[in-house]
Amino acid sequence: MNIYRANIIHTPTPNAFEICPKAYICVGDDGCVEGIYEQLPSCYSASQVTDFGDHLLIPAFCDMHVHAPQYRNMGVAMDEELLQWLNKYTFPEEIRFAEMEHAQRMYSRFVHELWMQGTMRSAVFATSHIPATLVLADMFLQSGMGAYIGLVGMNRNCPQPLICDTEQHLAGLQTLMQYLHDRQKDEINPLCKPIVTPRFIPSCTPDMLEQLGRMAQQYNLPVQSHLSENMAEIEWVKELEPDVPTYAHAYHKYGLFGQTPTLMAHCCYTDGEEKELMRQSNVIAVHCPTSNSNLASGIAPIKQLLQANIPVALGTDVSGGNNLSVLRTIQYAIQLSKLQYAQYKRTVPFISLSEAFYMATKAGGSFFGNVGAFLKGYEFDALVVNDQYLNHDNYSLLHRIERYVYLGDDRDIVVRFCRGKEISKPRRL
Amino acid sequence: MNIYRANIIHTPTPNAFEICPKAYICVGDDGCVEGIYEQLPSCYSASQVTDFGDHLLIPAFCDMHVHAPQYRNMGVAMDEELLQWLNKYTFPEEIRFAEMEHAQRMYSRFVHELWMQGTMRSAVFATSHIPATLVLADMFLQSGMGAYIGLVGMNRNCPQPLICDTEQHLAGLQTLMQYLHDRQKDEINPLCKPIVTPRFIPSCTPDMLEQLGRMAQQYNLPVQSHLSENMAEIEWVKELEPDVPTYAHAYHKYGLFGQTPTLMAHCCYTDGEEKELMRQSNVIAVHCPTSNSNLASGIAPIKQLLQANIPVALGTDVSGGNNLSVLRTIQYAIQLSKLQYAQYKRTVPFISLSEAFYMATKAGGSFFGNVGAFLKGYEFDALVVNDQYLNHDNYSLLHRIERYVYLGDDRDIVVRFCRGKEISKPRRL
Repeated sequence: MNIYRANIIHTPTPNAFEICPKAYICVGDDGCVEGIYEQLPSCYSASQVTDFGDHLLIPAFCDMHVHAPQYRNMGVAMDEELLQWLNKYTFPEEIRFAEMEHAQRMYSRFVHELWMQGTMRSAVFATSHIPATLVLADMFLQSGMGAYIGLVGMNRNCPQPLICDTEQHLAGLQTLMQYLHDRQKDEINPLCKPIVTPRFIPSCTPDMLEQLGRMAQQYNLPVQSHLSENMAEIEWVKELEPDVPTYAHAYHKYGLFGQTPTLMAHCCYTDGEEKELMRQSNVIAVHCPTSNSNLASGIAPIKQLLQANIPVALGTDVSGGNNLSVLRTIQYAIQLSKLQYAQYKRTVPFISLSEAFYMATKAGGSFFGNVGAFLKGYEFDALVVNDQYLNHDNYSLLHRIERYVYLGDDRDIVVRFCRGKEISKPRRL
Repeated sequence: MNIYRANIIHTPTPNAFEICPKAYICVGDDGCVEGIYEQLPSCYSASQVTDFGDHLLIPAFCDMHVHAPQYRNMGVAMDEELLQWLNKYTFPEEIRFAEMEHAQRMYSRFVHELWMQGTMRSAVFATSHIPATLVLADMFLQSGMGAYIGLVGMNRNCPQPLICDTEQHLAGLQTLMQYLHDRQKDEINPLCKPIVTPRFIPSCTPDMLEQLGRMAQQYNLPVQSHLSENMAEIEWVKELEPDVPTYAHAYHKYGLFGQTPTLMAHCCYTDGEEKELMRQSNVIAVHCPTSNSNLASGIAPIKQLLQANIPVALGTDVSGGNNLSVLRTIQYAIQLSKLQYAQYKRTVPFISLSEAFYMATKAGGSFFGNVGAFLKGYEFDALVVNDQYLNHDNYSLLHRIERYVYLGDDRDIVVRFCRGKEISKPRRL
């Protein structure tokens, strides 16, 4: 049993923050929240309390779409749109993950930086290389943080060194599953899991897609991929899959769209039949506003997806996104929504601060189980935020969380928890 | 004579960075650049060299539109559009600058934060209060940084405590002029100057506007104001000034649009006749992309203004903008330009990194004279940037400046210069 005291702020629903000033939160030995209390109940009075004073205690962030091997390209190479950008910058960098030394160095930095930014859970694309993906898995296992780790499926339309044929890829996925499963048994870190990861329709032959869909269902593995990010990409998918009405239907046909829990990144042009299939299939849309700006993909219709009851989480999408900060991504999500509101002549409302914060915590967290809020039975993933410098004039707690979103950064995070355990800084090679 | 050695990077033109690896820059006793040299010429060999090793040396930033009294509201209160936002959040906060203690505290924090962010020159709105504006002037004078300081003219359509009638306002402006003039004579800080600052057309009666225009021309004072930020604002100006074809023509009619050097912030909807008048009048458009997002004003057509040969500088526009970082503003300028490019179906190109960097340095700097680049005769306004942490894998200097723009922050700035003098951290009350 651990008891913490701080200004507790979270979003049990998207509509508003729940704010508990100088309250107690009790966390069981299973790492799950037992309750939040204004006064500590007598049954807990024998336990010691860790008092974080006037600090904020908020749910840790969930980054639901990010490419670990693109860490070196973060903050550079943003003068092209998606398809040219992949060929010119992204694939050449991913090829380097055949070298284990490069993989170790970059993946250690990536995991270190996730920690810095307060991201305790993530859904990650590795590359198509099996050994390097096991290195990434190891880094996450050692960190204590949670992650879905994706060995990337790609067997066409990319440079030869990234091609991995269907059989090899499926064997690699089996290896990764077994590797993570063994370490779960050993209780090293039960929070790292495999995820089926076809890069996107153009990168995978129908055969690979079909077999990945079958494997996802056989082992009940979740799925992640890209959907309707860029106009040229959408046109290309139409050519490759002329028999289905939308891009989403192509994934669906292969068993990769909601047959098991599914994340689809971007959805910049998701509307009509595609939107309807998303809703029916309980697919989570992962909004990547920074990346959608940097690659000139456009503004995703996030409010419209929410209005259609499609869950929306957030992703940094490094290196389409230029940083690993989910905090900054919250801000971009709101700002882009406001620009769309202006563009659509105020006919669609913009998303609120609490809605965007919910996306970054509870909406993303739902993919991992009961994660992303401080409700009873939820895993205690939390950040302790010292916003002393930002709180220079006695701001209200609501203004303090707003200022942290708009002005804070990694410096302000002083303690990080994942499923009840304090997570220490990962080693950076 | 001072000589510095570092990786020198600047934008003499918008088209490209000039990059001088491990080069020498010689700065005369007048604070102006004498030249950049790969090898130090023999005539300088007797002088000592300050070697900044592998650090970057870049021009300091110019924030060409910012509201000092809104510092407390920075990062909060962004759920309304312009006109409602002014009444609900901005005017109530500005009213507090009748209290000198509040003014001193907030203005000292504002000036301190400009310094933190590497902004050595700025064009600033104060409030309509004369004593508080002199306090702001004092803070700038003491800091050693350059600023145009605007006593804000407003005598209608605002809460009573902010109203200052024309006569009083003109007297206040005279006081501010004299105050700054006296300190220039005493050589305390010659870089602080007054600027005529009607808030915007709706805040000022025709009489006030006319007299301000006359005064600007009589004393050759520059002018700053807001232009075409928001649709409702533009409609309101049409009602108030039915006889002129555009919002810009209203300022022009009163002698406040290019008759002396003029900054106009926002220009989100500037097109057609308004754009033509801007070009003819040599008015500088100040792009405030962060604020234009936060207040849902829309994306300003910056590339189109540049194509029409209208100079464009950058402004943080705190507290419409949520931070005082010109670095972040560079990033937003590019990102919003890319979103517009997507919206306009790729018919208008997006602005490049060097174009946006130029806006933040040389374009804004031109308002202060020869400022914002390291050309011969230019005032030496510079930042020494230690990007060691960002340069973790031997990036090229071009990638290093790109990563600094996209990933850096105030932590990375280790030394700041304004007109040749190293500027130390201002006192923060």
